[in-house]
Amino acid sequence: MTRDMKLVAFMQAQNCSNYPASWRHKASMPDWDTPEFYARIARTLEAGKFHLAFFDDRLAIPDRYNEDYRPTVQYGVRAVKFDAATIAMIMGLATSRLGLGLTYSTTYHEPFHVARLFATMDLMLGGRVAWNVVTSLNDSEAANFGADQHLAHDLRYDRADEFMEIVTGHWNTWEPDAILRDRDSGIFADPSKVHRLDYKGKFLKSRGPFTVPPSPQGRPVIIQAGQSGRGRLFAARWAELIFVIYPNFAVAQKSYAAMREALGENPAAITPAIYPIVAETRSMAEDRMAEIEKLAKPEDALILLSEVLNHDFGSKGLDDPFTQDELDSLSGLQAIRDRVIQLSGKANPTVRDFVTHSGRGSLHELPVFCGSPRDVADEMEKWFAEGACDGFVVAGSYLPGSYEDFVRLVVPELQKRGLFRKDYTGATLRENLGLGMRGAHPGAMTSGRGGAE
Amino acid sequence: MTRDMKLVAFMQAQNCSNYPASWRHKASMPDWDTPEFYARIARTLEAGKFHLAFFDDRLAIPDRYNEDYRPTVQYGVRAVKFDAATIAMIMGLATSRLGLGLTYSTTYHEPFHVARLFATMDLMLGGRVAWNVVTSLNDSEAANFGADQHLAHDLRYDRADEFMEIVTGHWNTWEPDAILRDRDSGIFADPSKVHRLDYKGKFLKSRGPFTVPPSPQGRPVIIQAGQSGRGRLFAARWAELIFVIYPNFAVAQKSYAAMREALGENPAAITPAIYPIVAETRSMAEDRMAEIEKLAKPEDALILLSEVLNHDFGSKGLDDPFTQDELDSLSGLQAIRDRVIQLSGKANPTVRDFVTHSGRGSLHELPVFCGSPRDVADEMEKWFAEGACDGFVVAGSYLPGSYEDFVRLVVPELQKRGLFRKDYTGATLRENLGLGMRGAHPGAMTSGRGGAE
Repeated sequence: MTRDMKLVAFMQAQNCSNYPASWRHKASMPDWDTPEFYARIARTLEAGKFHLAFFDDRLAIPDRYNEDYRPTVQYGVRAVKFDAATIAMIMGLATSRLGLGLTYSTTYHEPFHVARLFATMDLMLGGRVAWNVVTSLNDSEAANFGADQHLAHDLRYDRADEFMEIVTGHWNTWEPDAILRDRDSGIFADPSKVHRLDYKGKFLKSRGPFTVPPSPQGRPVIIQAGQSGRGRLFAARWAELIFVIYPNFAVAQKSYAAMREALGENPAAITPAIYPIVAETRSMAEDRMAEIEKLAKPEDALILLSEVLNHDFGSKGLDDPFTQDELDSLSGLQAIRDRVIQLSGKANPTVRDFVTHSGRGSLHELPVFCGSPRDVADEMEKWFAEGACDGFVVAGSYLPGSYEDFVRLVVPELQKRGLFRKDYTGATLRENLGLGMRGAHPGAMTSGRGGAE
Repeated sequence: MTRDMKLVAFMQAQNCSNYPASWRHKASMPDWDTPEFYARIARTLEAGKFHLAFFDDRLAIPDRYNEDYRPTVQYGVRAVKFDAATIAMIMGLATSRLGLGLTYSTTYHEPFHVARLFATMDLMLGGRVAWNVVTSLNDSEAANFGADQHLAHDLRYDRADEFMEIVTGHWNTWEPDAILRDRDSGIFADPSKVHRLDYKGKFLKSRGPFTVPPSPQGRPVIIQAGQSGRGRLFAARWAELIFVIYPNFAVAQKSYAAMREALGENPAAITPAIYPIVAETRSMAEDRMAEIEKLAKPEDALILLSEVLNHDFGSKGLDDPFTQDELDSLSGLQAIRDRVIQLSGKANPTVRDFVTHSGRGSLHELPVFCGSPRDVADEMEKWFAEGACDGFVVAGSYLPGSYEDFVRLVVPELQKRGLFRKDYTGATLRENLGLGMRGAHPGAMTSGRGGAE
């Protein structure tokens, strides 16, 4: 196999999958508030040789729609959000090879804490942890954290660069062979192999020494999802795995090429999210999809659009167009606004256009690969072989069934075609992703001890 | 049994126990950097029916002695410090009844994060989690977090009160029966049973709604360790379990009575830390203690004193007395300074007096109960029956052996005497500590939703 397809599970530490109606599915397990639920999914993913399970995060309940949180709670539209590190530890301790990636905001945490948390998890799980770096942008989150306003978009990334220099800097300050554990002499470690960071930036500073020795993979893997211009620069510098959402194959091919170019020498795998809906036959899969689709309620879309675009979608009629000023003021994920403008063909789309073309709240937020195992593998092979991706972030439409179906039916077909490995190739996530010990690209290599002054 | 002795294990997520030389012991396991090490201790504690394992924390390596971190690293004097939540999850998932308490600073974390982290852990572990609330005071910690100065001692507690109002307030915002999970109607929860906090204080604010439903114990247990005047007021309001260090029985009796009075109607158990050294016979235990004591190096004491009192103990000679100005400037744990003044009988103790009487770095930082199982149980019974404590925080002198010795030899003797229960009395930590669902005292009862304005 010349190229190894990357498989990532798109997890949420909440009452539903990425598909908000998933909890309403007959076959969804209702015990999403127990460790057994997550351990079961972890074991399934490891049986399917997934590279990692990846958790998104949101530090608030969606509450922008009608400026009210109650519809969110009533319909269970991501109404619960757990601390993902806790859930990732449950999954990590139930497995021995599966990687665990989780989102942690650079806006509401201190870099020393982030460095220590991820280093500890990575050491305890034998080198299987990844950090998805995000900057926070949502008013509901800001209200929970008592913050009155956010840094402008580009400044957020400048500060995030410093945050990364501190976190990855600390991770590099213990040389791998520093610890001696010599009980007879009483010498614990070689002090010349442990260094202060002494970082002083424009926004942030941190001194060290750090308090956690390195894991078998050297340091956690960095995941990044920024698709804006500034976000791409950030990804080029830091990312070792890139999470994207591409609406369809044509856009994916174009966007993948552009992202590859923005990444330059950084070989980070680019992995778009998809919903696979698979069954023994194509018609069974179509029936399964119809069952899943009819679980969605109209509120699901309006609640999620209001949250992700930081705007109350209940404040105007369904067929009222957005003015240019309103479009410019959408401070959330700019990729969604751009997608709706592109797919609707309107410079000033309506609320309904957002509901239809953003796909938020529906299964069609992401590309749906529906059919027999061969159908789904055909589509994946096409994207993978024809320059649209390096692998996939597999979202669940009901849990844990989506992953059990996929592992039972699609993974063997991918393996048969030589697209996906038959077993883990190493013990650590870095080894399984084919990454070097301290980052696979120049940005990571130079972000070592000492930091910027 | 009229009174149930509380037993807490004094854990550290680091390379040694509270006794810094412990890692040098022949029988200490060297795998303190693996999950198996912590899971093994957890299973031992649960076999011994311990109420909980309790983790301290420090957000820096000690580095005030000679203003250099290298002796700390060289001698392994608490040179490693992991994220304790990660380690607590390992221990919690290896057990089903043991409580898990961990220290989290109100200085370097956001209250919404603390509320979500502890609520998630508590839910996933079936209601077995406790939070030890601390305010941070150490320059080395401040340097890691890029903070230039600290709030004055009393202001720290004023801010910490607001922090607690937010955290416990969020914990009370989901009514226990809010979640319906009705798949057929698509109604997830009753929105009238989930509330915003809408807290605005002088230092902090947070809105909500919170994102984690309550655990079987309602909310995590609150632990507190403040022994200063303002700290006692804080404890009286918030604490449900109190951690203390008393140097000997006489001081313990006096301090326990004073703390009880300060607590007023709050019935929180007061638990002093001890080192039990037990073996089959008294002379074997004394031999064991001598072996343990000789592991200590002089640097251990000087490094730890410098850290805990925020002062370089290498900056003056061993027999130089501290001036009054110097004594007043010690900004760390004031109880230690007061103890040295009291035990040395000098208004101006020397560096050597601090080394001798503080006990820092040696086994005699804490009272040592050394002897046969009956000797150790006699001493514990005396403290417990004669008004010096409600239980003990059991520190390890080598790991995991200290706990294995204690559980095998001392616990059965305590049970035989009717001082300690023979099994867990409930499923949750609150049940096992005899606490009510939402706090056992008036302060906790009134800190519900709404918060202070």
